[in-house]
Amino acid sequence: MDWSTQYSARGQAMNPSMIREILKLTQKGNVISFAGGLPAPSLFPKERFAEISERLIREQGETSLQYSTTDGDSRLREWLAEYHQVDSSNIQITTGSQQALDLVGKILLDANDTVIVAAPTYLGALQSFTVYQPNYVTVPSDGDGMVVDGLEEIIQKYQPKLLYVIPNFDNPSGAVMSLERRQQLVALAQQYNLPIFEDDPYGELYFTGERLPRLRDLAPECVIYASSFSKILAPGLRVAWVCADAAVRDKLAIAKQGSDLHTPTLTQMLLAETLQDQSFWQGQLENIRSYYRKQRDLMMAAVEKYLPSNVHYHTPNGGMFLWLTLEEGIDTMELFRTAVDHGVAYVPGTTFFANGGGHNTMRLSYSVATAEQIDTGMQALSKVLTNALQPA
Amino acid sequence: MDWSTQYSARGQAMNPSMIREILKLTQKGNVISFAGGLPAPSLFPKERFAEISERLIREQGETSLQYSTTDGDSRLREWLAEYHQVDSSNIQITTGSQQALDLVGKILLDANDTVIVAAPTYLGALQSFTVYQPNYVTVPSDGDGMVVDGLEEIIQKYQPKLLYVIPNFDNPSGAVMSLERRQQLVALAQQYNLPIFEDDPYGELYFTGERLPRLRDLAPECVIYASSFSKILAPGLRVAWVCADAAVRDKLAIAKQGSDLHTPTLTQMLLAETLQDQSFWQGQLENIRSYYRKQRDLMMAAVEKYLPSNVHYHTPNGGMFLWLTLEEGIDTMELFRTAVDHGVAYVPGTTFFANGGGHNTMRLSYSVATAEQIDTGMQALSKVLTNALQPA
Repeated sequence: MDWSTQYSARGQAMNPSMIREILKLTQKGNVISFAGGLPAPSLFPKERFAEISERLIREQGETSLQYSTTDGDSRLREWLAEYHQVDSSNIQITTGSQQALDLVGKILLDANDTVIVAAPTYLGALQSFTVYQPNYVTVPSDGDGMVVDGLEEIIQKYQPKLLYVIPNFDNPSGAVMSLERRQQLVALAQQYNLPIFEDDPYGELYFTGERLPRLRDLAPECVIYASSFSKILAPGLRVAWVCADAAVRDKLAIAKQGSDLHTPTLTQMLLAETLQDQSFWQGQLENIRSYYRKQRDLMMAAVEKYLPSNVHYHTPNGGMFLWLTLEEGIDTMELFRTAVDHGVAYVPGTTFFANGGGHNTMRLSYSVATAEQIDTGMQALSKVLTNALQPA
Repeated sequence: MDWSTQYSARGQAMNPSMIREILKLTQKGNVISFAGGLPAPSLFPKERFAEISERLIREQGETSLQYSTTDGDSRLREWLAEYHQVDSSNIQITTGSQQALDLVGKILLDANDTVIVAAPTYLGALQSFTVYQPNYVTVPSDGDGMVVDGLEEIIQKYQPKLLYVIPNFDNPSGAVMSLERRQQLVALAQQYNLPIFEDDPYGELYFTGERLPRLRDLAPECVIYASSFSKILAPGLRVAWVCADAAVRDKLAIAKQGSDLHTPTLTQMLLAETLQDQSFWQGQLENIRSYYRKQRDLMMAAVEKYLPSNVHYHTPNGGMFLWLTLEEGIDTMELFRTAVDHGVAYVPGTTFFANGGGHNTMRLSYSVATAEQIDTGMQALSKVLTNALQPA
């Protein structure tokens, strides 16, 4: 049987992601990779999780190993409701925030609907939404996040079904959306009945000051908010959540029932039990902020020490990513193999552009590299860039 | 914002499942429920899981709590490859077999494609597929499973994109597809290039003899096979798998990447480690078969003792379900509240019919009720049915 003729239109369009193929290259030999975005495993609360999971299975195995509700573990939902200062009817547990993206696409997007995204934006969001065959309209972003000037004209012209944004420590740009832009954005959403997907996996990873108000808190009626324990506690548990209007949450739950019935009971109960200890939670937040801040400092020191002066960037104030913009003539995709040959890897920025572009950009992650790897890797990257920038 | 105007066509069509609402009724008071299909929690290997999960987190937490591949845990895939006598490139791990249904719908179904299902068939499959807006054509089933006579004409007329079938201990009918029908079905699939989704969560739960050959084993090139550890070990882990053509498996992996990135690392590793002990696996299979066989015997004894003689059924030789067909004039949906008032619950059979019908049918599960509950509950059901069958 020739399966290639059997796929749906969306199935035909699914191809291995460029980034996945690229990451395979970096696993060979002695390549220092700034390409991935893995949380640092030294931050996982191993001892605590080991003890709690053993106890949950031994003492409550009839519950923790059994089917459970699609909505999610009730204790976990109550904890999240308090965290958000909402009712638990606003909280839906998802199997990673990747699933939140899929479910929102499922319930909102018909073929040819317009979705507004920043250029660049999170590749995984594009992968989830694209299944539902929308068109993308991109708006630029800068050091203050998604540019809101000009958005009203776009809304009027395209009547978009959804706007997707990562307001805090954006993947890939690292930018934080300013308070002024947040206010302007939700005002437009309210005026034009535009649903916003606020994707916030990095919101707790700020290095200075406090977090800015969530879009969801500024305009609860317009915003579907998603976040995750992946960057705070451990990604391998695949537990994330949505905070949304109760009717929307109900719809997401129905969609989730057909998607995976429910998120594993055990991993949800493990988190619910862990989170009962408020001082542990506060300590964990301090640990991850301080750890990633040190990593950021190492990366920025290497950037200043090694990179040519015509490379542009904004120093990230949180999260895991540094975004570089090089001279116009440079193509980071073309340069990638050269970089790997020099022992260093990044993600070519063009993969984050829904409608193309960004050939002279790249994403670097500082989340897991050692001080020595950062120094050596950035020195190698500098050499690659300097060679590329020199006239042949 | 009025969200009700924002949903996609598929989102608009998503409504709380009747079965879900019905199950809520059964949670009140002293209702004996034969409605659910929960595995018996006494069969969960709690001590073993507790010990292994504690060890996996404490000793390998940097892996077991970290992101992992979309394909699934390599040790688990290798075990499953050996179980199926295939290459691990044919195995994809999914978050429950519900996800396998969603992913197959995603990669194969365009709006208005035809899907062939038995009447009755698994409600959850309909929920997953319906998101991709197919039309259903139903074929009847009897004590030997899906009726294959007449299928060729249907294939010629509708050019279906997919045929969905549960050959072993069907949910809801309990039937096993005969070997002859299996051979006829795959011959048609081969002749007409018809993809088959073979859903097999109950395949290991046979009470006598041996399992019949899988459709996948009869025609590997045509069949996407899915099964799950939910009914064998524990459903709360949400670990299931697909065995399919390697190209199809690759496509499913890409679809899964956008759906939940990967199934939780910890629960996969927990199963992979558990399954290294082959004698435990064999013992567990014997335990579940013997347990559910005893439950089936209790149920059939009560059926023979109490039910009116004009109720039709086939004694299930495996699995968890008994399917009853009553006199034509009876509507089990209408009768449901009366039954609950009499202290017993079932699932009205019409919910399992993709295009309506089956008003005089019901599904009973014998998986978790005690001997006393089965006796008392069936006595109550008998009373309800006898009253309903009597002319007013």
